[in-house]
Amino acid sequence: MQFNSNFNDIAESYLFAEVAKRAQSYGESHPDKKILRLGIGDVTLPLAPAVISAMHSAVDEMSRKQSFRGYGPYEGYDFLREKIRGYYASFGVDAGMDEIFVSDGAKSDLGNILDIFSPGGVALIPDPVYPVYVDTNLMAGRKTVFAAADRGNGFLPLPDNSVNADIIYICSPNNPTGAVYDFGGLKSWVDYANSRGAVILFDAAYECFVHGNLPRSIYQIEGARTCAIEFCSFSKIAGFTGTRCGYTVIPRELVRGGLSANKLWLRRQSTKFNGVSYVVQRGAEAVFSPEGMSQIKQNLKVYENNAKLISDCLDGLGIYYTGGKNSPYVWLECPGERDSWRFFDKLLEEAQVVGTPGAGFGKNGEGYFRLTAFGSPEVTAEAVERIKKLF
Amino acid sequence: MQFNSNFNDIAESYLFAEVAKRAQSYGESHPDKKILRLGIGDVTLPLAPAVISAMHSAVDEMSRKQSFRGYGPYEGYDFLREKIRGYYASFGVDAGMDEIFVSDGAKSDLGNILDIFSPGGVALIPDPVYPVYVDTNLMAGRKTVFAAADRGNGFLPLPDNSVNADIIYICSPNNPTGAVYDFGGLKSWVDYANSRGAVILFDAAYECFVHGNLPRSIYQIEGARTCAIEFCSFSKIAGFTGTRCGYTVIPRELVRGGLSANKLWLRRQSTKFNGVSYVVQRGAEAVFSPEGMSQIKQNLKVYENNAKLISDCLDGLGIYYTGGKNSPYVWLECPGERDSWRFFDKLLEEAQVVGTPGAGFGKNGEGYFRLTAFGSPEVTAEAVERIKKLF
Repeated sequence: MQFNSNFNDIAESYLFAEVAKRAQSYGESHPDKKILRLGIGDVTLPLAPAVISAMHSAVDEMSRKQSFRGYGPYEGYDFLREKIRGYYASFGVDAGMDEIFVSDGAKSDLGNILDIFSPGGVALIPDPVYPVYVDTNLMAGRKTVFAAADRGNGFLPLPDNSVNADIIYICSPNNPTGAVYDFGGLKSWVDYANSRGAVILFDAAYECFVHGNLPRSIYQIEGARTCAIEFCSFSKIAGFTGTRCGYTVIPRELVRGGLSANKLWLRRQSTKFNGVSYVVQRGAEAVFSPEGMSQIKQNLKVYENNAKLISDCLDGLGIYYTGGKNSPYVWLECPGERDSWRFFDKLLEEAQVVGTPGAGFGKNGEGYFRLTAFGSPEVTAEAVERIKKLF
Repeated sequence: MQFNSNFNDIAESYLFAEVAKRAQSYGESHPDKKILRLGIGDVTLPLAPAVISAMHSAVDEMSRKQSFRGYGPYEGYDFLREKIRGYYASFGVDAGMDEIFVSDGAKSDLGNILDIFSPGGVALIPDPVYPVYVDTNLMAGRKTVFAAADRGNGFLPLPDNSVNADIIYICSPNNPTGAVYDFGGLKSWVDYANSRGAVILFDAAYECFVHGNLPRSIYQIEGARTCAIEFCSFSKIAGFTGTRCGYTVIPRELVRGGLSANKLWLRRQSTKFNGVSYVVQRGAEAVFSPEGMSQIKQNLKVYENNAKLISDCLDGLGIYYTGGKNSPYVWLECPGERDSWRFFDKLLEEAQVVGTPGAGFGKNGEGYFRLTAFGSPEVTAEAVERIKKLF
């Protein structure tokens, strides 16, 4: 038996390892300098009290024979799916109970969803991008093409009818650029997908940062139910990066060649998955309680204030950026420098601020730099002061 | 884009749904009868106090900024992998830290592992069998052939050198038959695999029921490190069916065509998975503490006593069976009946005992019946009395 040689096509990603290595090396040779880290995409605030309390109760249930839970439903417990349904309804989307699948995170589902597609075809992926979309398709031996995101289109590429695509990835608010599609932009993607029978994989992991008149879900767009699958997560809304819970929505209308994506996914999950930990699902349920929502909004406010601090600073300096509003990411053009790794070194050496070089997210990321709002307010404020002084 | 038409080849499994339907229907028309259920493969005893306490502590850690945990390592936290390593060492297997991967359950890994294999080839699967081995290969479009397990070989088929196989599934102790390979049996499979470069996928989910001079791990067999991947789980040893944690071992020596299975799996997991919930990993760690192990052995003893009750009863009645010792499953020849669904109906109607018809596990399961030891001691004892009276 041979192993899957498609893995040879995947570039080893040293991005975050290289970032950590350079920061560590600088720290060791400059022990007197305080390094401020705005590079990671991981949350830092603890779980909300309502979530903690729900998880303690669920652990207690698991300790008693009468309330112990064994195997749960593959698609998640009704108590959680009902709450997710209600959350969708709060921004006008009607998702059926049988269209909602609870998982251990959006990343798992974004990778595993490829099981339900035929081999072959072309995946259209924005550049720059979260590397997982590319790598999962390369593993499956699928051809990938890129939609160039750049300053010209505000890092929000629109469909090009001369490009053929079978699977289309959209992440809005985007990682790494923080750019958010408006209703018109998403509508053009939905129309493009429907016109050729393509399927949109919509990554909504950052929807909780969206305010104002912008779509939070692809299903706010007419026609999306016949062409789109949506992936969402508790990681950013509720700090679940280490607790692990997400959900995927697959409309009943998404049918190709007589096969229902919804039914195929249920079959896939019932064969290769055994549901999410009961304790975690109870924690996720509590996110949607009135207290949970109120506590979680306080945490989000902290990150949003950080993002505003950073974007206000860039506004003051006249540096071009996307994101910062409706997103925890700020994606800036490296001032006076086209090489994003050289900019990384400059920022580290002259301001002791760590970010992520745009080149790590794709060819079009060169010349750009990602700062995140997930640090503490104190660290963010100090980093902003140092950046102001530097430029 | 078309969806994966290989899903059309998978038979809809109505096994447990049909079992539940018939039992419910009988119950509704006979409200005075007490139905005893020995059909499910799910645990019923609560989590051990040491596990509960560890999970509460971990939830508390998640409530404080200083001890909060975000994204964890893809392969699992060191604190848990060190304990798994120690557990393996307790039965003489030396597994390296970088060979152990923590997951959300053996079922997920048994399905997802196929990502690292080339398309094509032949999967050799025992019959009767846990349906997931067959279905995951059909989804991937891989040819499946069967190794007949029957009374002639004690439901422990041995390799046939005239059969070509690239991937070989072995589950020992077996689900559904409860049969356990001895060292010689597993050695012949390891030799067969090594002789043709095949890879064994060894499902050790029930290893905790093994006593005496029988292998608990494929790595107790010389030569296994060049041909085998092992899947294990906290589901049965510690009642984690609803808590979700397992682990997979991939030796560094498992290399084909220059590709290391261990490195491919790490790459697969880092691309399509984001680790197991921190709280769950702390619970799993506590399984291996001295108190945890002692508490868990008490639970296992309850299930083992149930299995002994059932097998002693069958011994007394002179009914052929496998399992019952070193396994929570008892697999019996249907007395006086070749049709396992007719036997199901007879047992339900005349003794109000629910089991699982062997035909649901494959062609060779016809004429057999599975009883499980996961019920309560009281229910098991009463079921055994009724079976004694019936035959």
